[in-house]
Amino acid sequence: MTPVALDPRTLLETALEEARAGLDEGGIPIGAALFAADGTLLGRGHNRRVQDDDPSTHAETAAFRAAGRQRDYRDTVMVTTLSPCWYCSGLVRQFGIGALVVGEARTFSGGHDWLAEHGVAVTVVDDERCATLMTDFIAARPELWYEDIGEVRS
Amino acid sequence: MTPVALDPRTLLETALEEARAGLDEGGIPIGAALFAADGTLLGRGHNRRVQDDDPSTHAETAAFRAAGRQRDYRDTVMVTTLSPCWYCSGLVRQFGIGALVVGEARTFSGGHDWLAEHGVAVTVVDDERCATLMTDFIAARPELWYEDIGEVRS
Repeated sequence: MTPVALDPRTLLETALEEARAGLDEGGIPIGAALFAADGTLLGRGHNRRVQDDDPSTHAETAAFRAAGRQRDYRDTVMVTTLSPCWYCSGLVRQFGIGALVVGEARTFSGGHDWLAEHGVAVTVVDDERCATLMTDFIAARPELWYEDIGEVRS
Repeated sequence: MTPVALDPRTLLETALEEARAGLDEGGIPIGAALFAADGTLLGRGHNRRVQDDDPSTHAETAAFRAAGRQRDYRDTVMVTTLSPCWYCSGLVRQFGIGALVVGEARTFSGGHDWLAEHGVAVTVVDDERCATLMTDFIAARPELWYEDIGEVRS
């Protein structure tokens, strides 16, 4: 069921564009996109916590929403610039999304190993640009980043 | 960190009102609410797949969004009429929501045991009204229900 003809690095470019758009808007620079098995873009989006004051819009949920109602996600690929948090990993698992491409898992490691254990075809690209984007952002705005992943630092 | 003074059955009434509102709108009857430790309602909502053509708005994510940006969820309680799916269970885990009240887990059993293993204080009320609401809905609109949990039936 796993799409095989798609190049993860090519797909990642769309997610990276989204992450950069989010940064330009003053937001948290994480982007994502959902693709069909033939490479058709179904939906794309980025984190909108700051822009919309909406804690529920992570990059992956934004891309998922933008793709609209789909009947079968098994042949789809979720691409995200950063390892998905539990919220977004749960999304991938619940809807049976077949494949996951992760830009980087250095600055944050969420549920991508858990998803692999549950049958999702996971590729971690370890893209330097994605890592630098998050490293710089976390250094500049740590309070926003920790808020976004529900981490309380006292 | 777990709120102790709140009665799960009382909190559940708000989620049940939301589920019924969703049904009246022609939607999937699942409702949820997020409460502070002192019983203050932070946000409430219901599944809006049908109403908004939005697959990302489950009851729990709607309640979470309605609560706005919060800095610390450890003392909050998520109340939902139905056992949360992986997507919504991931939400509870990622944001460190301290307690979960589940109306019923008969018609669908999601990640509430997983959450209990990860330190969330979980109460399953096993409310007959919640169970009847879902049983009747699934019998009437099975295709909508399976779409909502990403289950493909061929």
